[in-house]
Parts: sequence; structure tokens; C-alpha cells
Amino acid sequence: MDAGGLAKTGALGGHRVVIVGGGFAGLYAARGLKGAGVDLTLLDKRNFHLFPPLLYQVATGALSPGEIAQPLRAILRKDPDATVLLAEAVGIDVTRRRVLLADGGPIEYDTLVVATGAQHAYFGHDEWAKLAPGLKTMEDALEMRRRILIAFEAAEREADPVRRSEWMTFVVVGGGPTGVELAGALGEIAHDTLKRDFRSINPGDAHIVLIEGMERVLPTYPASLSRKAARQLEQLGVQVRTGSFVTDVDENAVTIKVGDRSERIPTRTVLWAAGVEASSLGKALAVATGVAADKAGRLPVTPELTLAGHPEIFVAGDLALVPWRDKQPVPGVAPAAIQQGQYVARAIRRRLSGQRSEPFHYHDKGSLATIGRSRAVADLGRFRRFSGFPAWFLWLTIHIVYLMGLQNRLIVLVRWTWSFLTHGRGTRLITGGPLLPPISEPEPPA
Amino acid sequence: MDAGGLAKTGALGGHRVVIVGGGFAGLYAARGLKGAGVDLTLLDKRNFHLFPPLLYQVATGALSPGEIAQPLRAILRKDPDATVLLAEAVGIDVTRRRVLLADGGPIEYDTLVVATGAQHAYFGHDEWAKLAPGLKTMEDALEMRRRILIAFEAAEREADPVRRSEWMTFVVVGGGPTGVELAGALGEIAHDTLKRDFRSINPGDAHIVLIEGMERVLPTYPASLSRKAARQLEQLGVQVRTGSFVTDVDENAVTIKVGDRSERIPTRTVLWAAGVEASSLGKALAVATGVAADKAGRLPVTPELTLAGHPEIFVAGDLALVPWRDKQPVPGVAPAAIQQGQYVARAIRRRLSGQRSEPFHYHDKGSLATIGRSRAVADLGRFRRFSGFPAWFLWLTIHIVYLMGLQNRLIVLVRWTWSFLTHGRGTRLITGGPLLPPISEPEPPA
Repeated sequence: MDAGGLAKTGALGGHRVVIVGGGFAGLYAARGLKGAGVDLTLLDKRNFHLFPPLLYQVATGALSPGEIAQPLRAILRKDPDATVLLAEAVGIDVTRRRVLLADGGPIEYDTLVVATGAQHAYFGHDEWAKLAPGLKTMEDALEMRRRILIAFEAAEREADPVRRSEWMTFVVVGGGPTGVELAGALGEIAHDTLKRDFRSINPGDAHIVLIEGMERVLPTYPASLSRKAARQLEQLGVQVRTGSFVTDVDENAVTIKVGDRSERIPTRTVLWAAGVEASSLGKALAVATGVAADKAGRLPVTPELTLAGHPEIFVAGDLALVPWRDKQPVPGVAPAAIQQGQYVARAIRRRLSGQRSEPFHYHDKGSLATIGRSRAVADLGRFRRFSGFPAWFLWLTIHIVYLMGLQNRLIVLVRWTWSFLTHGRGTRLITGGPLLPPISEPEPPA
Repeated sequence: MDAGGLAKTGALGGHRVVIVGGGFAGLYAARGLKGAGVDLTLLDKRNFHLFPPLLYQVATGALSPGEIAQPLRAILRKDPDATVLLAEAVGIDVTRRRVLLADGGPIEYDTLVVATGAQHAYFGHDEWAKLAPGLKTMEDALEMRRRILIAFEAAEREADPVRRSEWMTFVVVGGGPTGVELAGALGEIAHDTLKRDFRSINPGDAHIVLIEGMERVLPTYPASLSRKAARQLEQLGVQVRTGSFVTDVDENAVTIKVGDRSERIPTRTVLWAAGVEASSLGKALAVATGVAADKAGRLPVTPELTLAGHPEIFVAGDLALVPWRDKQPVPGVAPAAIQQGQYVARAIRRRLSGQRSEPFHYHDKGSLATIGRSRAVADLGRFRRFSGFPAWFLWLTIHIVYLMGLQNRLIVLVRWTWSFLTHGRGTRLITGGPLLPPISEPEPPA
């Protein structure tokens, strides 16, 4: 193999484990292999582990990017057998057992863990991507933040009431946890954070619309919690539109279909929180192994989370299609990815000592979604469903605990405490992309 | 006038003060006018006030962007007479007394304060800009951070020892406070922060070179402190090259002239901390008023900080050329800009009540520069020059006090305490621009 200066990999003669992807699944697999005596390479195209559950807080100016990310090298620093490689995997040569890189020589493996996750999808309308940014990467979050803040600035400078109203309308597409969190945060920004910041507009007049195709928001939650979430959103001024499908997105509007009726919602700011598809490396792997991916691009795995016919290839996290209950697969949520990563590490350790593994078992600890300050819903089992402050406090606690890096935890705690006391949001910067609101041409005098 | 939705400005019949630029001078002028009964508009092309003295800490991964910036609207929220306008001023019509915007109608003023500051300059070699980023904007700082982190990543993957050594060489051009701070921070990153992060390289082998044209670093400081600063830099592994002029910058090297000798320093990372010129609005203003700008583009002002023949136009901050002592102008540092902003506010208040102002007097409180952990130099007057921990602690304290926003102060304090205890740097993310290290083609086998 040739991986530039990394020729060391494998040279020690150890069992070579290559993990592609430093998200929850990949990182927990890597950490679980510490001390296992394997020669570990963690490969990612970003130099940091991102904590996606808090991305929406970056997008809405509550947290800074650095606070929800931790360098992979820093996390694995104390594991002398672990090498972090900043590179992009573009394919897998399953016959010669090596990972092909966009740049630089391939990396050989004895055991491969593919955990490259999912990206957002536009239901075949890729042209919507530039009009309606999603929320999967740090850059996505900063772009959302820029658009939200620019919209208020543009409204402040806009004299035409129709165009002003377009700038003051925010449409969030997708009523899952991310969409609910985004819409709730937008409600707080408009009614609380920016309350006294403008002179020509009243940010509280902002019109925030949450579009969901199913009959209720948080469709994977118990119906009682969906109702509570909808009520809490409405308290924040969010208009919840369920049973509505987006049929078009253009520069000035979102068009939705409600039943047989088509409706146009004029807006300049559309945030995408719907539709996910597996990462592109998954597609390459499906072709290479002959495994048939599902509609969302996920790869079906054996009970041991390996690909059929390839016990040396594990797939974990959002990319894996793992059967669960009621014909539903394991959901693409952080706890599932963490459990799968930990399972893969244990399975590799057992194999190396000649033992078989039990099948992977997903332990569903429940679901939590936050809507805003003291507003959240929790589903921890049939008799443990609650909402409001207790659910919100539980949400905060769990997110602090799972955030990587003690310093990040401390700083996020400071920011949250501050926000709770002052109703403020600390990081409302417009950076990257156009920095100024576009100004419409004044109408020529009649 | 027509400023879109802001038609209110001036409509109340108050005296219209327009401040262009929300840096130290502009912001302190705006704050000083609170309650003065003027109709105030603060115009900036960014939505936040930036704290430039800590930009180098963003560039070196110690702080996050949001921590050294505060939204202008948030700062002026409690002043009902103040309007913040996110727009770019491109010219001044001094006859009709209005500020021309890049986008949208012009803004009329009765009194104008121009405080658009300085930008970095490349001594007529604008082609160096893309090879050697400077440090004036938030984007500059993030670009520097990206390049520094990518360089170590590229070195880790580079098999060729010559190219690896190029990646491991960092050249900082300019031995003023910014250059000294950058070089010192690079020394700490190499020897401390990244010590255990890599497997193929030893970050401590990094070669950090600080280039200064004068005979000593910190040339505006007393010679004894320059010597101390140089010694402290050398303790951090920085090679200090004084009396050296950059004659060329290309992709693989910086060429310097030392006496009659020319020398090529192979490197892939050049950071620019030399050369400043006034912002472009200053040039437009010079043309409009017939005032002759100096070589650096600064506008000479009257003792009342106004332009000759235009008592209604104040110029403050880095853009103003204010005579001081020994034929030297007031330096382009934060305390000078703050004092000028405060002075302008007082002068406007006095005028409105029919009083004349005393000439502006710069109160030089001294100079402080930090080199690294417990390393700094302070010059607070002839008998109050010191270095090491006391100077460093004073530097920290003053920077915390002048940082805008209580939350920012608290978080920076947390980060600094953390860094002091752990030798870590909390925000080492590669974002924006290319995210992966470029890999050289392997030599074809002979």
C-alpha cells in the first residue's frame, strides 16, 4: 500500500482495522478498539467529530461551530495504535481489500468498518438544494444561520410590504425532530432574541411555517406527544401545516399540496429538514458487493452488522439497514449509531480471540425532542411520556453528557445558562457567502 | 432620501448623525451619543463588531469566531435613537451630504463620522494576497486556521522528506504585535497543543520563522522589550529574522533579502502580518474633499478630527492621520480608536449645545504584546516596563475587559483558563475552503 507518510499502517504486522467515517458509529467503534492490539486507522474527510443533534443550535445562533465539534486527533490522542487520516474515501476494492482515496494511495484493511452516514435528499429535486439548505454539515448550519439573519436584515431595509412579508416568512420543511427544533428556535428568535433589535420591523411579526407530509409532527413519536409538540410550537408562533407536501420551491415561494389543493407560500427563506439518503460511499459499496440498497440507499446487513458474503466488512450507523421491530428498521438516530459502533468494536475483539458474537440488539432508550426554552417532549416508554420543563431539562442533560470534549461541555453549559437567564443567543454572526441583504429596486415613479 | 424601509431616519427632524464603520472608533462614537437626542445611523457591512486584538486567537484555534464578535444590533439595542444599517458605503457625496451605498438609496447626514479603518497591504504585490493571507477580517482568521491545520495534516501524509519539510515550515511576515502573537501561538501549537496528535510527524519539528524588516521585533516598543520578546519567541522555537525584507512569495517558498544577500525559505504556509493601508472609502473621501491622503491612505485631520473645510465630517480610528509627538502620528491601535470615537461623540454633543471642543488629545496608556502562555511584554511608561507572567496576566485582563458582551467575556475566560490548565486549544476545526491536505504524486518508480 501507499498512503504517503502513513506507510506505517500494517507494517507492524497487526490486524489492520480501517474505519471510514468519524461520526457516532465510527468514533465509538474506534474508541471501543483501544487496547485491542489492532492496527487502527480512522479515516474521515473532516478533521473533527461533529455532534449533529446540536447543529440546529449553530444554525440558529445559539452555539458556535467549535462548541459542537472536537478534533478526531484530540479524541484518539491517547490511543497509540490509532492513526487518524484526513482523506476522502471514494470506493472500496473488496477483492484486494483496500479503501480507495480521492487523493493519495489506497489503504489496505483486514477488517473494514463503513460508517459514512447519510446526507439530506430532495426527493429527486436536487435543484431545490441551493434554495433550501439542509442541515447535515457545519457549513450547512452556518449557511442556515446566514440566511436567517440576512432575512431579518433584508426585511428591515425593504420598503415594499409584499417583499418585506416574503422576507419575514420562514418555511421549515419536515416535521421530524430537526424540523421541530428549527421551527421552535425560529419562533424564539423572532419573539424573544431579536425583539428590540430592529427599528422598521417587529421581528415578532415573522411568520414561521412548519410543513409535514404526515398527519402529525414527530410522526415516529406517540400521538399524544405529537399533539403536545404541535401545541408548544404554536405557543411560539409557529404555524404547523401537517398533511402537506412540498411540490415546488422557487426563489420567492414554496408550493405545497394539501389534499387536492395547491397552495403557494411566499417566502425567501426555506430550511430543509426532510429526506435523508445514504452517503455516496454506500452506493459504491453496494455495487462492489452486489448488496441491494434500499430506497434511501441504506445497506442491509447481517445480524452481526456485516455485509452478506463479506464478514470482514461491517456497516454501522445511518448507512446500515438493520431490522428491528414491526418490520421497521433501527432508526437513524445518535443512540443507535453509538450502540452499533460499540457493538462492532466488541465483535472485532471477539473475533480476534476466536469467539463468535451475539447478534446486534438495539436497545431503544426512548426519544426526546426539544421545541424551545422549557419546551420539549420525551418518550421513554409507554408509561414514561412527558413534556414541558422536565423533558427539556432531560434533553439538555443528555446532550451535554454525549457532547465530545469536557471544554465544549462547559462552554455549552455556560451558553445555555446564559440564554436561559437572558433569552439571548450568543453567536448571531453573518459570515461566509453574501454578507449584505439584497435590496429590491425601488419602483420607478409613475 | 431613500433607504428602503429606513425612511424614518431624519424624519423626526433631529440632527442626523451617520457613522460609517462599527469598529472601535465608530462603535464608541455611537455609544457616546446615546441620549444626545441625535438621530443616529450606524452603517457597517458586517452585522457584528469585531475585536481584532483577539483575531489571532481565532486563527490559531484558541477561540471561536462568535466569541470575539458581538452583533451591532445587540450592542445598540437599548438606544432607541440608534438605527443599525447593514450596508456597504461606497462613496460620500460631500456637497449633498449623503453616503452612497453599494445597494439601496443614499443616506443623508448632517454630521458624518467615517471610521472604516484599515486593511492589509502587500507593498504593491497584490498577487501575494492569495498565497499569504492577512488577518483583518473573521474570514481571514478562519482561512489562516485552515491553512495552519491543513499544513500539519499534509505533512503527516507526505512521504517525500523535502515536501514534508516545506509543509512543516511556517513563515510569519511582520514583527509587529500581530506577527509576534501569531508566531508565538504557532510555536505553542507545534510544541504543546499538537504534541501527541500525529503518528508520522513530530509537530515539534515545525520550523517557524518570523520575518521583520527593521532591526528588531516590536519596533515601536522600547529596545529592551524587543529583546525580551525575541528571547521569548526563541524559547517557543521561533526563528526570528530581523533586517529581512520579503522580495517574493510563491507556492513553495518565501524569498527574503538580508543585507545584499537573497535567501529562499521553502514553505507552504505564509501568514501576512505586515503592511496596512486605509480602507477604500477613505480614498473616495480624499478625492471628494481634496484632502491629500498619506502613503498608507490615511486622511490628515484637524485637531478636532474633522476634514479641513468640512467641519461636518469627522474621521476617526485607523483611517485618521492624527499628529502626535516626535512627528509620529497617533498609532493605529485599539485604545487610540476608542479614544477618538469617544472624542467625536463628545465633540458632536458640544457642538449641538453651541460649545467649541478642545483639540483631541491622545492619552498613551502604553503597549502590551503577548507571545504565549505566561510570555508577554508591557510598556506602560519609562519606569513601568516588564515582561513574563505579570505582563501576560495584564494582557489577559485588559482584553477581557474590552471585549464586547458579557457572555463572550465569560466564555473567553473559560477557554483561557482551560488552555492554561491543559495546554489545549479548543477550536481546531478545518472549515471552508479545501478541507483535505493536497497529496503530492508519488515519484514514478525508476
